[in-house]
Amino acid sequence: MRDRLAHVAYIELGNDIPGIRGLLAFRPKTAGPLGELAETLLRGDNTLSRGERELIAAYVSRLNECEYCASSHGATAAAQLAGGAARVRQVLAGAGVGRDGDGDGAADAGLVSAKLRALLDIAGLVQLGGRMVTEEAVAKARAEGATDVEIHDTVLIAATFCMFNRYVDGLGTSVPDDPAQYIASAEHLVAHGYTVPR
Amino acid sequence: MRDRLAHVAYIELGNDIPGIRGLLAFRPKTAGPLGELAETLLRGDNTLSRGERELIAAYVSRLNECEYCASSHGATAAAQLAGGAARVRQVLAGAGVGRDGDGDGAADAGLVSAKLRALLDIAGLVQLGGRMVTEEAVAKARAEGATDVEIHDTVLIAATFCMFNRYVDGLGTSVPDDPAQYIASAEHLVAHGYTVPR
Repeated sequence: MRDRLAHVAYIELGNDIPGIRGLLAFRPKTAGPLGELAETLLRGDNTLSRGERELIAAYVSRLNECEYCASSHGATAAAQLAGGAARVRQVLAGAGVGRDGDGDGAADAGLVSAKLRALLDIAGLVQLGGRMVTEEAVAKARAEGATDVEIHDTVLIAATFCMFNRYVDGLGTSVPDDPAQYIASAEHLVAHGYTVPR
Repeated sequence: MRDRLAHVAYIELGNDIPGIRGLLAFRPKTAGPLGELAETLLRGDNTLSRGERELIAAYVSRLNECEYCASSHGATAAAQLAGGAARVRQVLAGAGVGRDGDGDGAADAGLVSAKLRALLDIAGLVQLGGRMVTEEAVAKARAEGATDVEIHDTVLIAATFCMFNRYVDGLGTSVPDDPAQYIASAEHLVAHGYTVPR
């Protein structure tokens, strides 16, 4: 396993942009659909708020130990959720607790709605593997008021961050350690979104 | 964990199309960028052949135990690789063997080129997690002639199938058990590709 503090990508990117942005600049052909996927899932019209969807993304990234994505999407969630960074930090600190598929493992009851808690539980199961998701976890989310589209989007957001996390870490991209950089980046994302100009 | 033979999706799709295609029909907004991502990665201009890229996709799907994706992309690889289904079956049977990051674990030496073997080894590490990819595995691929773009694309294909596999299984989609269906689907994909009409 790679040293968490290593700071040089495994391939020659031709740029020194940290995290996924360096990869997107390196390979514009794949950057287009990746940006559009993130934009649609995290910012498109949805009954889940942008902050809630960013929190799901940060939660899965924390479980995958992807420091760049967890920090980046944690900051973007904090910028769009009541309670801000302190609340996001508490939810992420409980990530994966009681991840047994019966949806009762919340260590952070009261921090999020029962519906969002049930959706985060589903996301945690997706992180383990697609076949780990149970009908019980889905039924629990539905009982808390989640729609089929919300359940679908939660599974796809969680799956998508299992992709982004592996992309960022699998190519050994650099990770800024200054929290201010993530906050600045979050402000830019909240204002301008994920779509990459083509 | 879900019964492998279950055949009803966890949400009401409004269609009875198996595997990912039922999900794409259910949620056209996300189907667009997902189709474009698959098309770009698996069929766009590349120094890796389409068959080689489909083999990487099938290899990761097998490691994730995603029966639908492993069968579907295995058939699509077989349709585009010398040696066809028998060769693909042998490569997939060895998936994950010796997955320790030093690139010497090939149980299928001779079935694929040394370069493709090294790229499959990287894909296997990505399946475990982004932080499991080692500089040694990347150096091995480079020593066998892989370019930085090929290494990038291998990591992103592997990461993308960690997404698709979780999407398909996490929503409990149905899995055809008739091999002829995968062969017919592969013929369609070879001819027409993955892009979803928008």
